[in-house]
Amino acid sequence: MKLYYWPRTRAFRALWMLEETGCDYELVPVDIRNGDQRTPAFRHINPLMKIPAIEDGPVTMAESAAILMYLADKHPEGKLAPDSADPKRGRFLQWLFFGSACLEPAMAERFAGSKPNTFSFGWGDFTRVTQALQDELARGPWILGDQFTAADIMLGDGARIAVEAGLWERRPPISDYLDRIAARPGFQRALAVDNAQAAALL
Amino acid sequence: MKLYYWPRTRAFRALWMLEETGCDYELVPVDIRNGDQRTPAFRHINPLMKIPAIEDGPVTMAESAAILMYLADKHPEGKLAPDSADPKRGRFLQWLFFGSACLEPAMAERFAGSKPNTFSFGWGDFTRVTQALQDELARGPWILGDQFTAADIMLGDGARIAVEAGLWERRPPISDYLDRIAARPGFQRALAVDNAQAAALL
Repeated sequence: MKLYYWPRTRAFRALWMLEETGCDYELVPVDIRNGDQRTPAFRHINPLMKIPAIEDGPVTMAESAAILMYLADKHPEGKLAPDSADPKRGRFLQWLFFGSACLEPAMAERFAGSKPNTFSFGWGDFTRVTQALQDELARGPWILGDQFTAADIMLGDGARIAVEAGLWERRPPISDYLDRIAARPGFQRALAVDNAQAAALL
Repeated sequence: MKLYYWPRTRAFRALWMLEETGCDYELVPVDIRNGDQRTPAFRHINPLMKIPAIEDGPVTMAESAAILMYLADKHPEGKLAPDSADPKRGRFLQWLFFGSACLEPAMAERFAGSKPNTFSFGWGDFTRVTQALQDELARGPWILGDQFTAADIMLGDGARIAVEAGLWERRPPISDYLDRIAARPGFQRALAVDNAQAAALL
């Protein structure tokens, strides 16, 4: 398992997921400051020229939420996704897709100062996305309740970025959620790797 | 199986998916012109107050791409997703998430006239998204090659909207893709339902 990676990027969520599964992996740095994501070899892996991407035997794939889904299903022993027979699978998929299809574009919309378009855009707008997610997290401890899943990796990493970028204040339920995340050994291992890579590469 | 629906909306892709699987379903109109998506009952199903959403016994869920994923896995006989043991599963997930996480926000960015931010935003920008998708579709006939999947429903419906909104010209490989889609009986049945509902409700 290879993770195409650069420190302090969205590749962190794939790194965190790998640490939560406990599987072996190799980091392949892609220096995005140097344009290495535009090489023909990397474009074959991800035509969008973005990290993260993974290579797993014959499988090469990208899109951070898709990678989380793939790894969750590949490692059922990690219980990072309800299986297909579990009625919670539907809500898991909803919140995993919400992370990439709603939270990220809504944050970008706010960050760029764009005019929201609640009616036309799939994510509604930043206010609606924030409210929907915070209402659900207030029930906690995780987005599906008691079970921590890959959807929490997607949403938790998004929440971390939203707070760091000043889009959300660090207060409950988001601060509690980030505290619970920070206490996870898998998150702590991933953060240690990211910090070490940042010290070596940046 | 209930589909919370309104004609001439993104709910079309869930309707099309249901017709591709051949399963029985009931349409539940949610009059978005009248604000019916804001009722407490509907917010319980989708806190984001958007359609489509589905109810399947104990399962209620939203997010159009998540609904496609759920239905594809629930109806393996329809072969609308590679199964977990198939090496194509990874690329399937990549393109399904690309539809909601990249194509839709990139279209919104262009539609709103926003300044692209290739470095920071998960989808890159409109030009990069268009190029990546069109390069892959030029190989065709479907996004994974010979197998039509739920990812084609997501991307095909996105492509249709992009052409109708004037964001893309109707030329190969997009025009060929849309022609192949228009020839599918499942698409034709869904379009007939959407047209009949539009005539009755709009």
